[in-house]
Formats: sequence, structure tokens, C-alpha cells
Amino acid sequence: MTKPISYADAGVSIDKANLAVAKIREHARSTFNEKTLTEIGSFGGMFSGVFPGMAEPILVASADGVGTKLKVAFETGIHNTVGADLVNHCVNDILVQGARPLFFLDYFATGKLDPEVTASVVEGFARACRENGCVLLGGETAEMPSMYADGEYDLAGFIVGVVDKAKVIDGKSIKPGDVVLGLPSTGLQTNGYSLARKLFFEVGGYTVDSYIDELGTTVGEALLATHSSFLPQIEPLLGTQASSLQSGQDARVPLIKGLAHITGGGFLENIPRILPEGVSVEINRGSWPEPPIFGLMQKIGNVSDHEMFRTFNMGIGMVIICGEADAEILAGQLKDRFVIGQVSNQNQERVVIA
Amino acid sequence: MTKPISYADAGVSIDKANLAVAKIREHARSTFNEKTLTEIGSFGGMFSGVFPGMAEPILVASADGVGTKLKVAFETGIHNTVGADLVNHCVNDILVQGARPLFFLDYFATGKLDPEVTASVVEGFARACRENGCVLLGGETAEMPSMYADGEYDLAGFIVGVVDKAKVIDGKSIKPGDVVLGLPSTGLQTNGYSLARKLFFEVGGYTVDSYIDELGTTVGEALLATHSSFLPQIEPLLGTQASSLQSGQDARVPLIKGLAHITGGGFLENIPRILPEGVSVEINRGSWPEPPIFGLMQKIGNVSDHEMFRTFNMGIGMVIICGEADAEILAGQLKDRFVIGQVSNQNQERVVIA
Repeated sequence: MTKPISYADAGVSIDKANLAVAKIREHARSTFNEKTLTEIGSFGGMFSGVFPGMAEPILVASADGVGTKLKVAFETGIHNTVGADLVNHCVNDILVQGARPLFFLDYFATGKLDPEVTASVVEGFARACRENGCVLLGGETAEMPSMYADGEYDLAGFIVGVVDKAKVIDGKSIKPGDVVLGLPSTGLQTNGYSLARKLFFEVGGYTVDSYIDELGTTVGEALLATHSSFLPQIEPLLGTQASSLQSGQDARVPLIKGLAHITGGGFLENIPRILPEGVSVEINRGSWPEPPIFGLMQKIGNVSDHEMFRTFNMGIGMVIICGEADAEILAGQLKDRFVIGQVSNQNQERVVIA
Repeated sequence: MTKPISYADAGVSIDKANLAVAKIREHARSTFNEKTLTEIGSFGGMFSGVFPGMAEPILVASADGVGTKLKVAFETGIHNTVGADLVNHCVNDILVQGARPLFFLDYFATGKLDPEVTASVVEGFARACRENGCVLLGGETAEMPSMYADGEYDLAGFIVGVVDKAKVIDGKSIKPGDVVLGLPSTGLQTNGYSLARKLFFEVGGYTVDSYIDELGTTVGEALLATHSSFLPQIEPLLGTQASSLQSGQDARVPLIKGLAHITGGGFLENIPRILPEGVSVEINRGSWPEPPIFGLMQKIGNVSDHEMFRTFNMGIGMVIICGEADAEILAGQLKDRFVIGQVSNQNQERVVIA
């Protein structure tokens, strides 16, 4: 008779998963609000779909990952920030359409479940959810032997927010003469890490522990700088109308005409996502301080300017476009911001870096 | 001067990603309906949050993965069914609370992007979304060199559905004497694959191409059997009230008192998720035909009955609990179903297999 084989023999421990789930529940509960109608552990998470004061609520949803920034977490053993990266990334992605976050769900997949690491990752999710007023409504923790290398995991995040139809930000009113503002990023945010890791670790010969004077920190810490949520800065301005001088006949032009989150595809591919036909954007390089990490990477790999701007955020995490007459008002209401360019008639390139 | 390094040198091709996104858009568009307010490619997907006819809409959200069933897809080269597995899994997970699906978002992560494989996976997402009346609203395609083995990928799915508060199914009215019905699964659905693969491939020495008479097909095809959506069978019954004879004083008892989707944790761990305090469920083994794949796996590994029922669905994909007086009516409205047990006073075990 064969020795009886169990699920645990196949590398999957339901008991360990249940232990991890208990820790996850505790973190998730810390994010719950009065609109949360369910407990973690039920098949689906329940959230009120009643939006008082909204004439025509629109749900805005987005899915994202952390990319190979995770590799830096594995190498440094710091697991409590990548969850915040993912939440903030998702929050910013729906913020650009004018939406405030409602709830977030995570997917955590690993080869062999380590309840401590899982709890650390989820702590990051929960902390960032609380900071954004977003409920951690549920998620999936998957143990997949032989799919992931030892000590590695992948994360995906999913967010749903809401915006009243009249307050959707869609870039449609952007026109030549409008002003381009930029909010500073804390670092690479959550994209370009495969190139960054190649440059630092393969070409440059650094490790995560190498201290670099120019960065004032180790490579690992510089690369793990948490992706900011731009919600606190931008939320007070959502739904605000442009000044009447600017909007002329159309009183419904919003103060913020367009928002672009600088994610995968960098500066060059994200700004065009919000531009209507017939316009381009001219960016004045030098109008904001580029954090030294970008220049350092460029030098290490002799990377072209074009490739840098197509891959990285170059120090600007969120781009805001507003009417010329509103630029001063808007800039006055944002603590950290730079006037980085202007909207022009359409050129061959949708984004010109000058 | 170093040879200039580009993002593509680091193993990430934005161009290839854009090609994949174009194919994804085409599939996604085939799922759009009048409530879809946006195009794939915008930062967030927009969906109407107005639910006419609902007094108090509740959003129900769930996240899930496909687990190591993906390994069978890699080994057989069949990539257009795992997407449907994931959509149907998610649809069933929110159906158990009475919700109909609104929209789905996917996360697709791989080491080196193969646009053909990506398109095939997304075709499965889109087909199943159409079949469930669910919009494929967005997703994330991530190329993560060195995170996944060649030719491998991971998938996560996120679903949001809606149910009117008065029609939520929560199991609260379940009481001793109630009847347990089961809807047949097509196979393993989407859980227990790490054990199944160990049993067939390591212990049993089979390959995905081995033809097994008892299964009437190859191991690969048997293991890839698509996870069913139980929405078409159950949707017509959602919101239906129990017969007055059954409900007595409380006219608000629903016809379907509880639904349990048999996923990770199998029979033994999923049914208790919907049971109120004070009751257990007695399952009469033999009251439904167990598909031969379960007996075969049990024999190969000398797996205990307990472990089988804690890991696999054993041929029942969805469990339905209703009042005794309603069992005949309900059974009459379901095409394929078995009466598999009854609710009893609480025993030491929440689920007793007799």
C-alpha cells in the first residue's frame, strides 16, 4: 500500500493559509468603514452601492501590479512597503478620472506561504488603504508550488472608486495655451524596475546594500521609495470649476482639465493618454529638479534621453493640465508643484521634451 | 563609452506590450454593454453606478486566481480555457451572495510577453465574460523578466457584481431539516491542482498526453475541463421567495437560503462558510455520481477520504440549501441537480460525510 498522500505533501498547506488569512483579516478590519457590509472570508466582499448626493455615479476600476520592484523587496527583505506602492498606484490611476477610492482587493501569490511575509505585505496594503480612505475589502492568497522561486511572490491590486458623471476628468477641454503642472515623485514609483535593476546591479555592479553619496542612501532604499498617493493633494480640487474668465461661454470647464499618472511607458506614453486630437504638450526640461537617481542610471547605462523619458517618470509623478488663467490659482493650492510645460498645437510628437 | 542600454535590453518590450494591448482591446470590446462608459487603455475603466429598480444596491467584489491549473495549460499548450476558468470562478464566488456580475478585470503577468499566448488567454476571459453578461472592463499586462519561467504566466481576476440588499443570500435562515442540493462540477474546477498534478505526474507517472480509459480522455484534457458558471442555472431563481408553507410567519425567507461554491478547501471548508451557528450539514455520499477522476486520484495516492473532501469538490461544484417544503419546487427548476444531504443540529463537525 502506498503511503497516503495529502495536500500538504503537494506543497500546499490549507492550515498555513488559514493562519495567514487570520492575520490578513486583522489588517483588513482596520480599514473598514460604514459602507463595508461584510467580513473578509465571505465569498465576496460587500460594499454599499448607494452614493448620496451623486446625480449619476460612475464606478471607476483599475488593476495593477508592482512589477519587478518586488525583486528589490526580496533582496532587501523589506516587505511592508510594496503593498503601499500598489494601493497608491491604483488610487492614482482612478484619481486621474476624478474618482475617489471606495475599495481595494489584492492578489498575493507565492510558491511557499510564509505567514510573516504575507502579514508584512498586507500591513502595507492596509496602511495605505487607511491613508486613502479606501477599504481593503478582500483578496486572494494563493500558494502555488513550483510557480515562484523560493522567497518570491507576485502581487496584483484591484481598485474601485466613484465619481459623479458631471465631475469626470477626461482631458476633452484641453487646448493650446493650457499650462502643464507636475507633482514630484518620490523616486521610480512603480515602473521601470527591470531596467533600473539591470543598470544598478548588472552594469553598475552595485548591490542593494551599496551606499551611494549622490543618493544619500543605499541603492535598495532608493529603489524602494514608496510610490506616493496624490489623492491628498488633488482631492480638495476635484469638482472645482475653472474661473469664469478662462471658461468663457462654457461654465462647465473644470479647474483641472486633465491628469496623467506617470506609470509604465513613462513621461512620453502617459501624457498622450489624456490629450484630445489636435494638441501636443511641450515639456521644459530643467523646470523641475530631476532626482539624482535618474541621472545616475542614465550615466551608468549611457541611456538615451528618449529611452529615459519613455521608461521613467524623471521626477514627476503626476501631470496636471489647466487653463492659463487658472494656473496661478491652482499652483497656489498645491504645496509641491512645478510649472513644467504648456499645451501647443499638435506637433509630430504628442510630447516634446525641450 | 558604454553601448547605450534600453528598456528592451532589460527584457521589457513596451512595443510588444502595445501589440498585446491592441489584441486585448478587440476582445474586451466584444464584451462591452450600454453601462460601459470607457475604452480599454484609459487609466481606469468606467462603468455606470446607477442601478434602476434597486432600492439599496450592494456591490459584491471578489479576487481570485487559477492556481497551478495553469501548469496544465503550459504543458498542453492550451491557453484559451484558463481565462474562462477564472471568470466563471469569480462569477460563482459573488453569485453565492445573490449578486449578478457587472464587470471583470484581469491581471496577466509573464516573464517574456508572447502576444499570441496573451491573446489566447484574453480570448478565454472575453468569451466567458460574454456568456455571463459581464464586461471585461480592463486589466494589467505585466512583463516581469526573471519572475516567471519561460513560457509561464500567472493570472488573477477581479469581479464586481451587484445585488439589491433585500435579495442578499447569506445563509442566516438555514435551519435543521433544510435540504442540501448539489450542482455537478465538470471536474476539479479551479482548485486542488498541486495535489492532482503530484498524483498524476509524480506518483502515477502519467503525462498530460496519457489516455486513460476510465476518464475517456487524456489526463491533460481531463484536468483542463472548464470550471462551469452556475449563473445560468441559478439566476432565474435569485430573489424568489420561499413558499408560504415553508416560511411561516417570516414571509421574507428566500427560496435559496444559502449557496456555497466549492473552491479551495473543498467540500469540508466551503459549506461551513454559509452556515449559521447551531447547525451542521450531513452529506450522503453516493447520492451523486462521483466523476471517475476523483476515485482515480484517490487510488493513485492512497489519499484519505477526509483529505479528498477537504481538497476537491468530489463532483459537486455548487451547494444549494433550501427549506424542506421547497426542495421539490427548486429541484424541478434546476436541470442537473442532486439531493445530497440535509441540515441537522450542530455536531462536532460542521460537515459530516456519511
